[in-house]
Amino acid sequence: MVEARIRVIYGDTDQMGVVYHANYFRFFEFARGEYFRSRGGSYRDVEREGVMLPVIEATAAYKAPARYDDVLLVRARVSELKRASLTFTYELRREDAPHALLSTGHTVHACVGRDGKPTRLPEPLVRLLRDSP
Amino acid sequence: MVEARIRVIYGDTDQMGVVYHANYFRFFEFARGEYFRSRGGSYRDVEREGVMLPVIEATAAYKAPARYDDVLLVRARVSELKRASLTFTYELRREDAPHALLSTGHTVHACVGRDGKPTRLPEPLVRLLRDSP
Amino acid sequence: MVEARIRVIYGDTDQMGVVYHANYFRFFEFARGEYFRSRGGSYRDVEREGVMLPVIEATAAYKAPARYDDVLLVRARVSELKRASLTFTYELRREDAPHALLSTGHTVHACVGRDGKPTRLPEPLVRLLRDSP
Amino acid sequence: MVEARIRVIYGDTDQMGVVYHANYFRFFEFARGEYFRSRGGSYRDVEREGVMLPVIEATAAYKAPARYDDVLLVRARVSELKRASLTFTYELRREDAPHALLSTGHTVHACVGRDGKPTRLPEPLVRLLRDSP
Repeated sequence: MVEARIRVIYGDTDQMGVVYHANYFRFFEFARGEYFRSRGGSYRDVEREGVMLPVIEATAAYKAPARYDDVLLVRARVSELKRASLTFTYELRREDAPHALLSTGHTVHACVGRDGKPTRLPEPLVRLLRDSP
Repeated sequence: MVEARIRVIYGDTDQMGVVYHANYFRFFEFARGEYFRSRGGSYRDVEREGVMLPVIEATAAYKAPARYDDVLLVRARVSELKRASLTFTYELRREDAPHALLSTGHTVHACVGRDGKPTRLPEPLVRLLRDSP
Repeated sequence: MVEARIRVIYGDTDQMGVVYHANYFRFFEFARGEYFRSRGGSYRDVEREGVMLPVIEATAAYKAPARYDDVLLVRARVSELKRASLTFTYELRREDAPHALLSTGHTVHACVGRDGKPTRLPEPLVRLLRDSP
Repeated sequence: MVEARIRVIYGDTDQMGVVYHANYFRFFEFARGEYFRSRGGSYRDVEREGVMLPVIEATAAYKAPARYDDVLLVRARVSELKRASLTFTYELRREDAPHALLSTGHTVHACVGRDGKPTRLPEPLVRLLRDSP
């Protein structure tokens, strides 16, 4: 599990005065990147070694709004590792009110090779992502 | 059911050469707006009359990528109308390959009043949104 | 000169209730794409033939705000064609108030080859872009 | 002068494999927010006290691309303070190559009151923003 820190900018908000719903998926992506890094790797390196993990499903639930200038903490963890796909699960809170869950979500990723075809998750990647090292 | 037409720009894509997953929710929003318009109203007017329909849940499944310069057709329809919430369902295709489904999704919306509290969907809005007029 | 039509969505706005300033550059990009198309080509084809036109300078002036649900008309034209670069100039108005200029801007583009190095604008591209055909 | 740190995500890039030009203005905005904070204030508080600083002009020059996973350092400073407007100037570099300037830019901001009309920069704001405290 990793906790990424994000400051909400004006460009993230919409005219309701809250973060636009699509932008939470950007925050989730940032936390996902931090997850790779927290385990000693990076998604950039994963791609360099020849596999990509495109999003094939994305879900978010919005319980309470995030607002301009809020500092958000986004927890990301791998909740499922399959032969050729994996799932990340996210929890988003405000740093100054860490007990209230603002949003949850998940993204499912296929594992595809340079040819764009589904492929097995490489063993080093499985080791990198597995929650209990 | 309405079908909105969107041209993919460079700014919608990411370095995989496909539309970034979060941006599909922007396309869904555009189609949702067209849905209101196709029924003789507009979401802007809904807000002016005192209710807002914030997104409380959003989901997308990505089956095949949309790419730069593609013309997309996004179908939106109201798939569920409840007392104080509603669900839109979306289907996204390429105009030049309309039989292949690129993406599906839905968004659930709460109905809230000017005070930010949940409120019943106003009767005129129910009439506007109901699929069989 | 071409005039592209854009409907402002919620995702384009910020909490001031107006279109976020960075998003005008997305609108300009859309109009630029329409410019290529209005002349019988497309920027996608330009890239396929081996040159790219990355933005090396971008400017916008904001005179009056664009808002949610506005229909915008964006005029794009090539205002300068040099040996290895070109400039597009934009004017943005509301469809229902076409005499008031909301925004102006320009983008300067380098011409680079597949190797990423500056290269001369290919003759067919010059013919495509030149204002008086 | 303040230096804000930003990690480039996939959502910032486009299919050229570099950060999409419009997104630099989001990075500039983030650095501007950090500038207020580095001086003991925040733009959120400025708005709460009744003035807004909408962008009326924005410019960026792109000298070398920023890429996915890069850590960017964005310097922001107030380069001009006038009676009812001000200018921020930005410099963007990569953390691991701090001598190479990737991008420069500036944004001009009007000072407007709650009525949307231009107003003089309040004295406390001038003190907050002035470069030599």
